[in-house]
Amino acid sequence: MKIALDAMGGDFAPQAAVDGAVLAAQKLAGKAQVVLIGQEEAVRPLLQQHGAAADSLAFIPATQVIAMGEHPAKAYQQKQDSSIAVGYRMLHSGEVDAFCSAGSTGAMLVGAMFSVKAVPGVLRPAIANFVPKLHGGYGIFLDVGANAECKPEMLEQFGELGSLYAQYVLGIATPKVGLMNLGEEEGKGTALLQAAHQLLKVNPHIHFIGNIEGRDLFNDKADVVVCDGYTGNVMLKMAESIYDILVERHTIVDPFFEKFNYEAAGGSPILGINDNAIIGHGVSTPTAICSMLVQGYQMAESGISDQIKATFKS
Amino acid sequence: MKIALDAMGGDFAPQAAVDGAVLAAQKLAGKAQVVLIGQEEAVRPLLQQHGAAADSLAFIPATQVIAMGEHPAKAYQQKQDSSIAVGYRMLHSGEVDAFCSAGSTGAMLVGAMFSVKAVPGVLRPAIANFVPKLHGGYGIFLDVGANAECKPEMLEQFGELGSLYAQYVLGIATPKVGLMNLGEEEGKGTALLQAAHQLLKVNPHIHFIGNIEGRDLFNDKADVVVCDGYTGNVMLKMAESIYDILVERHTIVDPFFEKFNYEAAGGSPILGINDNAIIGHGVSTPTAICSMLVQGYQMAESGISDQIKATFKS
Repeated sequence: MKIALDAMGGDFAPQAAVDGAVLAAQKLAGKAQVVLIGQEEAVRPLLQQHGAAADSLAFIPATQVIAMGEHPAKAYQQKQDSSIAVGYRMLHSGEVDAFCSAGSTGAMLVGAMFSVKAVPGVLRPAIANFVPKLHGGYGIFLDVGANAECKPEMLEQFGELGSLYAQYVLGIATPKVGLMNLGEEEGKGTALLQAAHQLLKVNPHIHFIGNIEGRDLFNDKADVVVCDGYTGNVMLKMAESIYDILVERHTIVDPFFEKFNYEAAGGSPILGINDNAIIGHGVSTPTAICSMLVQGYQMAESGISDQIKATFKS
Repeated sequence: MKIALDAMGGDFAPQAAVDGAVLAAQKLAGKAQVVLIGQEEAVRPLLQQHGAAADSLAFIPATQVIAMGEHPAKAYQQKQDSSIAVGYRMLHSGEVDAFCSAGSTGAMLVGAMFSVKAVPGVLRPAIANFVPKLHGGYGIFLDVGANAECKPEMLEQFGELGSLYAQYVLGIATPKVGLMNLGEEEGKGTALLQAAHQLLKVNPHIHFIGNIEGRDLFNDKADVVVCDGYTGNVMLKMAESIYDILVERHTIVDPFFEKFNYEAAGGSPILGINDNAIIGHGVSTPTAICSMLVQGYQMAESGISDQIKATFKS
């Protein structure tokens, strides 16, 4: 099995990417090979610094880089030899089993849609994010930003996609799916939320437990939290900022709050596409890069994308 | 000046309400009188327990109570002698200058709309909530739940209402108004957010600073954060739950996180109605009730509702 990494993606690339890739290569030794994609003159010297520890890594050159400020669709089309475009081509052709990048979220989404493409039957892929649970482990919530504007049918599918991920990657036998709302009662919320509630309620593929509220994100009511990409993005960034404020001001030893740290959890998978792609945090450290690559391996190993294809075929 | 309290509202009423009212009466001595509204047989004995400390309070009997589970509009119409209905009648007739309740949010909103009514020109009143700022003081965000479904013009007005509150009650000379979005760039977000951005940008009554993100809620980018009632409600309940988790697990001495405690901040004002009404948290303690009554006094003293009327007249 091969897990690819965009060596040029992230605020501290290529250094953090290469360091994280070497860490991951050690963790995944005997299970998967890490494939680094990036500019040869930038990446090779960094790999050499690691000496024998970097021997197991594969390197694939890509001459171009998509910068954070560039227009995602334009940059993706114009820079066909960028690390992101090369990564998606390898993913699509089956040369690698997962592709991870801490680079441009927009370009990663564009690549997902244009290259590996959405699973037939999936209206719009979504980005999922881990949420630490008070009583241990993680749940996920989605969408966190791929789709600001949603239709009821999209929210229904987010429930299905998230449920499959929770089941096959997180190992939760019967994931509880909740709809983020402003009240628990069935009739609550916008027309979108009311209609999505009705669709989720009768969907045979999921265990829908009804509406949940903002205060329920971290408790055990739901393993999978469904929301539109605007609301999910606001929730995600707000939670991250509270964690940042907390660790800046206090020394807290607490397994729950430590799980807010994106470094341990890995990145945000794009769900509903024909392959395994993960978007990392822009400020990814080597630890975060390593977690993302391990997560990429777990996704590939679980066969989640085949499960998604099988579910949406029917 | 007279500040009225629904003595029957809140999970710990009437005990917590009466105790909080007595505290507030001491704080507001010489400035305002606290008026308790509720069932005589329940409230009188509690007042007597306080002895001379309760002498300055006025008591107005109301024979009925609107329970938390009741349908707000039906209950409000059928229970014309409920503490909430009596409170709004006194507010509307000018017998009191502000009305506070930790009871049914729905009934408080219904009363606001049917009794004191929306200010002419205001499409939909909103509920605002305080947000602690990292560098001291508070900002506000709105709507936090009165309007799940919003139109661009409503979000624009929330910006105006919030700005007036920040200016006249919080004392911020030129409040910075930000639109909660999933990216800072002008074209980001849903059609609703894009249209609201354009309206806010040219509104002459406010100082609009553009889009902000979930991570900016607690920093100094904006004093007033505009969002729909669904998103605001999710943000509010999520922040409350993180605070609850934090204090349950850790002893934290931190003026920033302490301001997450609703007890210190008071309640959530309904903005855009012809008078001063505040909704308290259901679990309000005597301290929280006292803060809400002091906030009611500050609202009345500031003349905020006249400022709102003047702004929307033009």
